[in-house]
Amino acid sequence: MQTPHPPIPGNPSGPGRPGSAGSPGGSRLDPWVTSYAERAQGMTASAIRALFSVANRPEVVSLAGGAPFVQALPLDDFADTTAKLIRERGATALQYCTGQGDERLREQICDVMELSGIRAHPDDVVITTGSQMALDLTVRVFCDPGDVVFVESPSYVGALGVFSSYQCEVVHVMTDEDGLNPVALSEAIDTARAAGKRPKLIYTVPTYQNPLGITAPPARRTDILQVAKSAGLLLLEDDPYCLLGFDGEVPRAIRADDADGVVYLGSFSKTIASGLRVGWALAPHGVREKLVLASEASVLCPSNFSQLTVSEYLATAPWLEQIKGFRELYRQRRDALLESMEQMMPAGTTWTVPDGGFFSWVTLPNGLDTTAMLPRAVAGLVAYVPGTGFYVDDQGRDAMRLSYCFPEPDRIREGVRRLSGIIETEMELVETFGPTSNTGRLPRRGPRTPSPELP
Amino acid sequence: MQTPHPPIPGNPSGPGRPGSAGSPGGSRLDPWVTSYAERAQGMTASAIRALFSVANRPEVVSLAGGAPFVQALPLDDFADTTAKLIRERGATALQYCTGQGDERLREQICDVMELSGIRAHPDDVVITTGSQMALDLTVRVFCDPGDVVFVESPSYVGALGVFSSYQCEVVHVMTDEDGLNPVALSEAIDTARAAGKRPKLIYTVPTYQNPLGITAPPARRTDILQVAKSAGLLLLEDDPYCLLGFDGEVPRAIRADDADGVVYLGSFSKTIASGLRVGWALAPHGVREKLVLASEASVLCPSNFSQLTVSEYLATAPWLEQIKGFRELYRQRRDALLESMEQMMPAGTTWTVPDGGFFSWVTLPNGLDTTAMLPRAVAGLVAYVPGTGFYVDDQGRDAMRLSYCFPEPDRIREGVRRLSGIIETEMELVETFGPTSNTGRLPRRGPRTPSPELP
Repeated sequence: MQTPHPPIPGNPSGPGRPGSAGSPGGSRLDPWVTSYAERAQGMTASAIRALFSVANRPEVVSLAGGAPFVQALPLDDFADTTAKLIRERGATALQYCTGQGDERLREQICDVMELSGIRAHPDDVVITTGSQMALDLTVRVFCDPGDVVFVESPSYVGALGVFSSYQCEVVHVMTDEDGLNPVALSEAIDTARAAGKRPKLIYTVPTYQNPLGITAPPARRTDILQVAKSAGLLLLEDDPYCLLGFDGEVPRAIRADDADGVVYLGSFSKTIASGLRVGWALAPHGVREKLVLASEASVLCPSNFSQLTVSEYLATAPWLEQIKGFRELYRQRRDALLESMEQMMPAGTTWTVPDGGFFSWVTLPNGLDTTAMLPRAVAGLVAYVPGTGFYVDDQGRDAMRLSYCFPEPDRIREGVRRLSGIIETEMELVETFGPTSNTGRLPRRGPRTPSPELP
Repeated sequence: MQTPHPPIPGNPSGPGRPGSAGSPGGSRLDPWVTSYAERAQGMTASAIRALFSVANRPEVVSLAGGAPFVQALPLDDFADTTAKLIRERGATALQYCTGQGDERLREQICDVMELSGIRAHPDDVVITTGSQMALDLTVRVFCDPGDVVFVESPSYVGALGVFSSYQCEVVHVMTDEDGLNPVALSEAIDTARAAGKRPKLIYTVPTYQNPLGITAPPARRTDILQVAKSAGLLLLEDDPYCLLGFDGEVPRAIRADDADGVVYLGSFSKTIASGLRVGWALAPHGVREKLVLASEASVLCPSNFSQLTVSEYLATAPWLEQIKGFRELYRQRRDALLESMEQMMPAGTTWTVPDGGFFSWVTLPNGLDTTAMLPRAVAGLVAYVPGTGFYVDDQGRDAMRLSYCFPEPDRIREGVRRLSGIIETEMELVETFGPTSNTGRLPRRGPRTPSPELP
């Protein structure tokens, strides 16, 4: 193929691929800095993100990321399933589909949700590029700038990123060992209304919450739903971990008891594979219509290639058995984390005990600042996510999220050993020189935009 | 797996899957109708969309959709490539990746863009869920409500959907046989500024434009870029069809001559497969940073499964040869369309002659309204997209977009035969009863949100 033009002009760096700093006519200053939308003003990469790129080096034990252990999948079977799909239905799998997503997969998703007690019609399911996109579309459809969203304390970093990108005001509601506190929630809504604000959504991860690892018991779920209904607010129930309970039980979803007041988000990222990017929203009928239109504006349609791969896998593989395998694997890793923390963490350190999912929330003794400590931890070859990342305000300084989903148990123990040493050194420093809270070299706030390191 | 709760209550329709109308506690009225964001007010499904679901029936010749003919891919090879990828690198392909996308694929994308004269660094490429998402992210990052975007007359329906979802004001600029008219563009910008508005973007598809099928010659591209630069506006160059020119030449991209002022959008949807949803943006460095953060908020990361499949295909398959095959196939179909229109279309009908891509733009004699005519065409077993779909205002009533990409040549000829008959009948009606323009049973405006039928 020939291009009908002379050699390319305008490239001052001569032959070879130009560096991004020396792009043709380029400079390091952003000429568009005054042109961005208001919503983009907060879109800046945090200093912590740069640290995470270091934390991905193999010598670092990363207890930071929320990546599932996809290596445990039967890859040969998966390869065969995909190849068969392309050979037999390639003309469909490689083509555009409808914006709402493949019909058979939507039926299968209804079967998956039945495990959580949800009865739904495939017509009310919208398939998305991961459930992150379902979250994004819901906020796009509901939230004007300034609208108030009520979330747990702390809350999923990726959700905070979405709310911030639509210029919502986020209110952290007091969260106890059973999840979002309904009395505090009700008061927070009243306070916002009294201040003339527009409450819009309640966002909750009731099961194996990210980052707390806690689960709301049935009575608490009923109370939260009741508060949402009384206040006339839509409840956004984010439920990616529900099939990963270590006792094998699947908590009944809040959506199971209310079809009109809940948008329910589900995902195959943790139960099959995150790299496929297949998630969904189950929404009240009118909302579902808007979500489909918003999805079409955003991506035209989700990947049929990914969707039909998931659909074939669900139809032909023993996927519930496979999930049992994942549960056992993650239970062992949770045990490795809890046992080694029990043995090695300095006195005064506390943590949550998850019954499923990927995370434990660790709180350090007074005076320690996990954001300030992070560079020293990474230098000591262990990584975590500082607690501030899960708040939009100044909370979480003395806390961190530890993930046990990806490293093998021995690596987890080694990570806790390193981390305990770092914390002890930090405690000695604080005893000698006082708290580091106001001298941290990193900005106080954590990674406000979600990173794929942090799902 | 057992769920720890009694049989599901709250489902008045009893056993069996509830219908969406009879969802538990549901009703046909949308209880959230007063809760939506302002940007969602325009998100309503048009009457035309309902017609398209009928148009997908096999007995209808659809000249409406822009779906590539993916059947022409070597599906067995594609299946083998994918299976090998999962077997050998499944732990990567099925895992989250970075928000910016796979590094090797970004390098390969730079090689693809070199065919259009573009010299770029992989660090300035952002991979997205189809180039539709790159378009969405660019608008998300740049446009506040009310910001003015200048587009061709007519313009890509999917882009209009994005602009509308971010509440932009769209200004159609006079477009001649060489594309966007630079004098008219300059005047439109001045007019908007004089009216106190905020011009923000110029959006153009300079090559085998959707829906016109026309291509801007080199001098015109230079002029358009000059107007953008003088006005200080970012140029958004959307270029999905560039490798599908029937003479085998690849027009030099506008981006090839300006790295700082252009966001360039590319796609594998038309050259490999639309169902993979792999597209990209090439952006000035500062813009690229924002796009990555916006993408992470939106989907965390693009599908690694799709990305690595594309990357393996580019690395191992004779993909340029395959594209040659596509070009020849589409050229034959264009010829079938043009020849049969020449033979059968009623006098007074005119059309554009595309040198590549998927579309021809057909204008009917005075008094005919393609939106009003569409139900009769579908009843006559042929479908097209009415011209109004490609405008935000009242233009395009006498025009339609015909696609020749998907149906076989014989079907195209049959479609034109049916369409010509419909138009003739319509002309007789108009002669007898006068124009239908004000009595059309469908709303004047076309499908303002993009449908996957209409890429």
